[in-house]
Amino acid sequence: MRSASSLHAAIDLGSNSFHLLVVRDVSGSLQTVARIKRKVRLAAGLDAKNQLSEESIQRGLHCLALFAEQLECVPLSQIRAVATATLRIATNAEDFLARANDILGLPINVISGEEEARLIYQGVAQTTSGSDQRLVVDIGGGSTELVTGTGTEATALFSLSMGCVTWLERYFTDRYLTRENFDRAQAAASAEIKKVKQTLITQGWQICVGASGTVQALQEIMIAQGMDEQITLPKLEQLKQRAIQCGKLEELEIEGLTLERALVFPSGLAILLAIFHELSITRMSLAGGALREGLIYGMISLPVDIDIRKRTLETTQHRFAVDLEQAERVKAACLMLVQQVADQWALSEYCQQLLFSAAALHELGLSINYRHGAANGAYLIRQLELPGFTPAQKQLVAAIVANQIGNIDLPSLSKQSALPLQQAEQLCRLFRLAIILCSTRSATDMHLFHLSALGERLTLRLDPQWAVTHPYRVELLQQEEHLQSYVHWGFAVAY
Amino acid sequence: MRSASSLHAAIDLGSNSFHLLVVRDVSGSLQTVARIKRKVRLAAGLDAKNQLSEESIQRGLHCLALFAEQLECVPLSQIRAVATATLRIATNAEDFLARANDILGLPINVISGEEEARLIYQGVAQTTSGSDQRLVVDIGGGSTELVTGTGTEATALFSLSMGCVTWLERYFTDRYLTRENFDRAQAAASAEIKKVKQTLITQGWQICVGASGTVQALQEIMIAQGMDEQITLPKLEQLKQRAIQCGKLEELEIEGLTLERALVFPSGLAILLAIFHELSITRMSLAGGALREGLIYGMISLPVDIDIRKRTLETTQHRFAVDLEQAERVKAACLMLVQQVADQWALSEYCQQLLFSAAALHELGLSINYRHGAANGAYLIRQLELPGFTPAQKQLVAAIVANQIGNIDLPSLSKQSALPLQQAEQLCRLFRLAIILCSTRSATDMHLFHLSALGERLTLRLDPQWAVTHPYRVELLQQEEHLQSYVHWGFAVAY
Repeated sequence: MRSASSLHAAIDLGSNSFHLLVVRDVSGSLQTVARIKRKVRLAAGLDAKNQLSEESIQRGLHCLALFAEQLECVPLSQIRAVATATLRIATNAEDFLARANDILGLPINVISGEEEARLIYQGVAQTTSGSDQRLVVDIGGGSTELVTGTGTEATALFSLSMGCVTWLERYFTDRYLTRENFDRAQAAASAEIKKVKQTLITQGWQICVGASGTVQALQEIMIAQGMDEQITLPKLEQLKQRAIQCGKLEELEIEGLTLERALVFPSGLAILLAIFHELSITRMSLAGGALREGLIYGMISLPVDIDIRKRTLETTQHRFAVDLEQAERVKAACLMLVQQVADQWALSEYCQQLLFSAAALHELGLSINYRHGAANGAYLIRQLELPGFTPAQKQLVAAIVANQIGNIDLPSLSKQSALPLQQAEQLCRLFRLAIILCSTRSATDMHLFHLSALGERLTLRLDPQWAVTHPYRVELLQQEEHLQSYVHWGFAVAY
Repeated sequence: MRSASSLHAAIDLGSNSFHLLVVRDVSGSLQTVARIKRKVRLAAGLDAKNQLSEESIQRGLHCLALFAEQLECVPLSQIRAVATATLRIATNAEDFLARANDILGLPINVISGEEEARLIYQGVAQTTSGSDQRLVVDIGGGSTELVTGTGTEATALFSLSMGCVTWLERYFTDRYLTRENFDRAQAAASAEIKKVKQTLITQGWQICVGASGTVQALQEIMIAQGMDEQITLPKLEQLKQRAIQCGKLEELEIEGLTLERALVFPSGLAILLAIFHELSITRMSLAGGALREGLIYGMISLPVDIDIRKRTLETTQHRFAVDLEQAERVKAACLMLVQQVADQWALSEYCQQLLFSAAALHELGLSINYRHGAANGAYLIRQLELPGFTPAQKQLVAAIVANQIGNIDLPSLSKQSALPLQQAEQLCRLFRLAIILCSTRSATDMHLFHLSALGERLTLRLDPQWAVTHPYRVELLQQEEHLQSYVHWGFAVAY
């Protein structure tokens, strides 16, 4: 019986892995309920004539039988199945697809490179924030997609016949991580990129976003090694050096690189290096989603013109029944305080947006309990997917939420890598004051308070009459003097 | 402006502390949004003629000014303020109340001992599960309430003029924790209890529930010392011995006893010991709420005839958007498996209820993310209030949920104290199989599986035809053989 109509599924038969993703649409917020991934390595089953071996076909079909069973619960009309590079080029693809169709009970769409690129772009656009002038890079097993776009519209779409599996088989055949192998792999990738380079550069972009396992692996390595999450050329070159030092693929060991990702990491790295060099990319961040997310979002009608972060904040507030009025009050108080110290603390628009995000989510933890509300709120922010926020941004927002009240945990502010420590501390300090001023959950005339900064020293001047009639907040502000002094922040209340 | 109509507040002017509790009604589930507690110690301000000193009145009024500020956001009609023992007997109570009324902007109701007992009973009945034939004990600062009742109806109500503050002032005047002081305190308490003993015993009870700080402190001590959470006479006697060993009130040190609770702990303990002896109580558990909760629940219309745990499970499922069909499927599978092994594993009704609670909540964590769904579900269960579940029961349900899939964490099962380890393991094992059998979220004929137990060895026999057409679950069951073998549980799949 296929009735649970809030379920949607995407199947992606890639050259390296087959993936199944099943999600539930919980009032506009997607909840993953099942995920199956099998490293089928279909591309490795192609012979010189691009014919798939029966053995690789069997591996694929076995995997699809698992998917079919998991899909019992999803209405057929809410499943999308696509196949990419390897099935595009396999001469006996039809044979595989007919048998696959029988197993799944639904047709598999072998999509063109361009269609693949378009779906990836959609997946990125629906899950990644930042400037909407993007270059999207997705290094798959058998193909690499390069797409420019504005907002949800792709402006140039390319799918190149190179991938981390095919490049592994071709340039690291001997499994040695020599400079020569890397150079040959990079040179070959550069040759591919040169064919499309001009069009991409003409379209232009403001930010570069990477999807797929290679970029995911890089992000995990950065986090494990305590670096900020931006991928830059020096970091890539350094990792290449490290790989060469390891000597052999079997002996590759990099802190933060999982065994599962290690095999195709050097070949993916070589391709990425070529992309950085050819397109003069200075920094790249990780996308929140790609092909499968593109398939899912294509089935679900979501408001498209809304900023992704805004949508994420709103659906998250809704899911955890946040008191919206209180969130607005704290946001308004934050804005007021930011403006009052603007001459001394020039907090960028970016900083302010992160501060407002903390305001939107600061009471998430009350949905769990009151006692550990701040800590639980931070826990939720770190653990939730929050499309549009990068891991580092989530860390920062979580650190502000965790420190909204009570003792100040400085290490949590220095552990985040979204902002320099000083700015993170400034945001945290303004936020704590906003929380105190709004602690009675009632409309308060913010003109009764005036905050001024002298270097890093803050003074909050209170209307004397207000101070007499509002002893609770005065008490909280006096406590705040102590709490900030413990961490050597200067804060004073004046009447 | 007082418009946020989902807010409700309760104020309780006790003899030891003044409390303010502000909650939000989030579709039938109460969320605490503010709490202020001040140790006003009003009872200590009474002189020999029961006149409150001006100093103690000032302490009280200052605290009320804080409350008034926090109450700006709550509609007056949704605030209840009551005063208890000390203001019942203070000869100048009227003076205090008039000034208090001015500050709060609403009248304070000095309630009779009987009314206090009735409200406490309501607070307990709305937050505590178990048999509905209860004896409720609440040791306050200036009075102790003893109430019997059935369901939400109190059948006998008593408020005795003894409390942990008054008994401290009277029997531990010299601050020495001698056997003599304890004996005098206990004897005096016994004399009070004897006056009402017969009526209570005639009404009878099946379970005994304790509210207030003394019982809360005891629970914290038990948990800190790794004991099960039931309060028993031997445990109380042991703590008395320990207190006597410490010698002086200032030197009282018991693992798990916070400084804040230490001062009135020995006097409260003496009263509780007298209650245990006089009423022949064998075990007592901690209530989920008392006076303030009684006030709040009195304002909010909740279905009264529904079992508290059932209500808690339903509102929690609703708040975290749990897939109800899947929860039901897993529950039905659990029931089936319990029945199949009933001859070997005689799992009590109590065990089964805990297992079904795990089924109801096992996907809570999906509201946070998919990857750590089981761990996050367990985290939520441990952190949520869950009226009707004791801390030990929450630990057990959380341990089952955490172990629903993947590697088995034996220590989490042995750390809970709701059930003997063997039974907890049995529940966990059945639960894991139910999760696998239901993993495709579709209706599955449970008669295709037959589970049998031989001692602790389990064998799951599959319908051979089903096994051929359902490779995904067969794969999961085969993995389960390994996972269970790692922790030396015997589990085999047969065709």
